[in-house]
Amino acid sequence: MKVGILGGGQLGRMLLQAAANYDLTTYVLEKDPNCPAAHLCHHFTTGDILDYDTVYQFGKQVDALTIEIEAVNVDALTQLEKEGVKIYPTPSAIRTIKNKIAQKQFYADNEIPSSNFVITDSAEAIRQHLGLLPAVHKLAEGGYDGKGVQIIEDEKSIALGFNAPAVLEEKVNIVKELALIVGMNIKGETVIFPPAEMVFDQVYNLLDYQLSPAKIEEQQLWKAEAIARKVVQSLKSPGLFAIELFVDQKGDILVNETAPRVHNSGHHTIEANYSSQYDMLLRIILGYPLGNPAPILPSAIVNLIGAEGYSGEVIYEGLDEVMKMDNVFVHLYGKTTTKPGRKMGHVTIISNDYMDLTHKANKIKHTLKVISK
Amino acid sequence: MKVGILGGGQLGRMLLQAAANYDLTTYVLEKDPNCPAAHLCHHFTTGDILDYDTVYQFGKQVDALTIEIEAVNVDALTQLEKEGVKIYPTPSAIRTIKNKIAQKQFYADNEIPSSNFVITDSAEAIRQHLGLLPAVHKLAEGGYDGKGVQIIEDEKSIALGFNAPAVLEEKVNIVKELALIVGMNIKGETVIFPPAEMVFDQVYNLLDYQLSPAKIEEQQLWKAEAIARKVVQSLKSPGLFAIELFVDQKGDILVNETAPRVHNSGHHTIEANYSSQYDMLLRIILGYPLGNPAPILPSAIVNLIGAEGYSGEVIYEGLDEVMKMDNVFVHLYGKTTTKPGRKMGHVTIISNDYMDLTHKANKIKHTLKVISK
Repeated sequence: MKVGILGGGQLGRMLLQAAANYDLTTYVLEKDPNCPAAHLCHHFTTGDILDYDTVYQFGKQVDALTIEIEAVNVDALTQLEKEGVKIYPTPSAIRTIKNKIAQKQFYADNEIPSSNFVITDSAEAIRQHLGLLPAVHKLAEGGYDGKGVQIIEDEKSIALGFNAPAVLEEKVNIVKELALIVGMNIKGETVIFPPAEMVFDQVYNLLDYQLSPAKIEEQQLWKAEAIARKVVQSLKSPGLFAIELFVDQKGDILVNETAPRVHNSGHHTIEANYSSQYDMLLRIILGYPLGNPAPILPSAIVNLIGAEGYSGEVIYEGLDEVMKMDNVFVHLYGKTTTKPGRKMGHVTIISNDYMDLTHKANKIKHTLKVISK
Repeated sequence: MKVGILGGGQLGRMLLQAAANYDLTTYVLEKDPNCPAAHLCHHFTTGDILDYDTVYQFGKQVDALTIEIEAVNVDALTQLEKEGVKIYPTPSAIRTIKNKIAQKQFYADNEIPSSNFVITDSAEAIRQHLGLLPAVHKLAEGGYDGKGVQIIEDEKSIALGFNAPAVLEEKVNIVKELALIVGMNIKGETVIFPPAEMVFDQVYNLLDYQLSPAKIEEQQLWKAEAIARKVVQSLKSPGLFAIELFVDQKGDILVNETAPRVHNSGHHTIEANYSSQYDMLLRIILGYPLGNPAPILPSAIVNLIGAEGYSGEVIYEGLDEVMKMDNVFVHLYGKTTTKPGRKMGHVTIISNDYMDLTHKANKIKHTLKVISK
C-alpha cells in the first residue's frame, strides 16, 4: 500500500520508524527538505501542505493519506476523498477540529462536556461576556503549541485578546489534566489507550512532564474513556485521536481539545505499550486488526524543549548523564537548530515504580538542557 | 556525526529505525536500490560492498562505518581506517571472523573453547581425519545462512565435502544452543545481553525459534558470559558482536561462531530489552554511554522464512490472526518477493510467562506462512 503523510516533523518521523515494521511504501510532503521525517520515507516531496494543488497532486499518487499536523489544505483532501483516496482522519473531522469555533460547537452539538464558551471576533467583544472571566481566548485558526492562546483574567486584560474570530472559554479550575488516545478503524471499532496525566510548563504552555497510566479512580477512568470514545464516534472518522481532558474541582471531566492525529501525549507508547500510537494508526490505515493498547510498564515522558536564551546549532548538555540511566529512552528529533520553546526531543522512562518515574523525570529535567553553540 | 552502513538488508533496516532516535546523518551502500534499508537513510549509494573502490569512496565521506554483513571489501576498510575513519568492528576483526579458518585459529590461539578442527583444501582431504567424524565441513569463505556448511557423518559422505579451503570441525553433541550479544566501546568497556536459547530448523539451518533469557544454571551463565566476553576482548575491536555457543552433553561450553555485527539472534532486544542491540551499537559509534542490556520481559522470536515451493510476489498468509495477539510484535522486512528459505520478517513475543512464549511461538509458526501469489 502507498501511504502519504502531510507534514514531516517529529510525529511523522516516529510514524515512519514504526512503518518500517510493515510492508508499505511511504510518501511525505513538507516544505522543509531537511525536516525530521524527510530521510525516512520512500518518496519525499518538497511542498506546502497548505497549498491546494500541491496537496492534491501529492495525494493522487497514494492509496491512503494521513496527517501529522492539522494545518493542511482540507479542500484538497475533500477532493481526494471524493476521488477514492482513503484519508485518516476524514477531511470533515479535520475541518471540525482545526477551527476552534467549529470544534467547540461540535462538542456542544454532541452533548460532549466542555467548558462554557462564546464566539468573539475581536478583543473588545470580550467586554460583553465579563461573566465568563477568568477565561481563555483562543484564535479560531492558526494556533499551535501555545501560540494563539491568551488567558483573560479580568476586564483589565481584555486588550490581550485577539482581533479575529476566536472562542472565549470559561477557565476551568483544573485539578488534573489527562490525555486519552483513541483509535478507530473503518469498521468503527475503537481502542483506547490508558490515560496519561500531565503537568504543563507555565512559560511555554508545552507539555512538561507526563505520567501514564494516570493515577485516577476507576469511576473517573470510565467517565474519561466514555467521553473520549464519544468524541471519536461523533467525529465519525477512522484514524487516531488524542483527547485532552480537564478534571475540575467538582470531579467533572471536560474536553479541552482534540487532536485528530498522533500526539505528543502518546510518545511513551513507543516503549511502554504493546502497540504504540504510531503502530495503532498504521494498523488502521493498513486494515490490520487493532493492536493492544495496554501498558507493558508505567511510564513518564520529559520533553526536551529549546532553552530560553539559546538559538542556533543545537547542543544537548547533560545528555551523557541521561543516557547512563537504566530505564530511560532518549529520542532526539534530529533538528539541527534550536530556539526557545522548540520541541527538540523527548525522553521516556519506564518503571513499575511511580516514585522512580517521578524521581527520574525530575532528574532529567534538571540534567538535560537544550542549548546552542 | 556521519555514519555509513555497508549492506542494506533487514539488519540495516532495523539499525536505521533505531538511528532515528538520535541526531546523526546516515549513509547506506548496497547494490540493490530496493533493499530493505534503502529508504531509511539520509544518503543511499547503489554499489557493491565487495568492490574496493566503491567501498573506499563511500567510506571517505563519513566519520564512522559499520557493517550488517561480513562479506565486504576488508582491504578498503583497512585503508579507510588508516585515513582516520572509525570502523565498527575493526577491519582486522572482520578479517579474522569472515574466514572460517582464521576464526577457528583465533579461538585456538586465544584459548577460547571451541570444537576440535583441522584445515582441509578438498573433500578428499577429510579421509585423513576419519577420527574427527562425524564432523561439520565449513567453507572458509562465502558461507552464509546455512550455505557452505555440510555435515560429514562418516566415510561414505566424504564426497559431500568442499573442494576448497575449509575447516572440518568435530560435531558437538549439542544439548543447547545459546547466543550472547556483547558490545564493546572504544574505551574497552563491555556490556553483555542475557543469553538467548535457540532451536534450529532442520531443513534450512536457519534460526527457527528462540527464547530469551535462556533457561540455564547460574554457573553455566557465568561461563557463557566469560567466554563471550573473552572472544570480544581478544578481537580487540569496538562494536557489537553475537557469539553463538554450544552446550554439550558434558556441560562444556564451546564457541560455534561469532558475528561481528548486529545479529538475527538479537531481534527481540528491540521490544524486550531496555537498550536494543541496534541502540547499543549506535551508542558505541556515537560515543554515548553503553546502554542497559537487561530484559524488560522475557521474549521469544519466530522467524518468518519463505515457505518451500513458493517464489514470487510475497503474501503473508495468516498475518491478521497473528496481528490480533496481545503481546506480539510483527516485523516485515519489506522484501517484495519471497523464495524458499528467504528471511522475510520476524515476530517477537514478550511475556513474563515462558509457557505463554512457547505456546504463542508455536501458534505463530503454524498460523503465519510466507507464500507467493
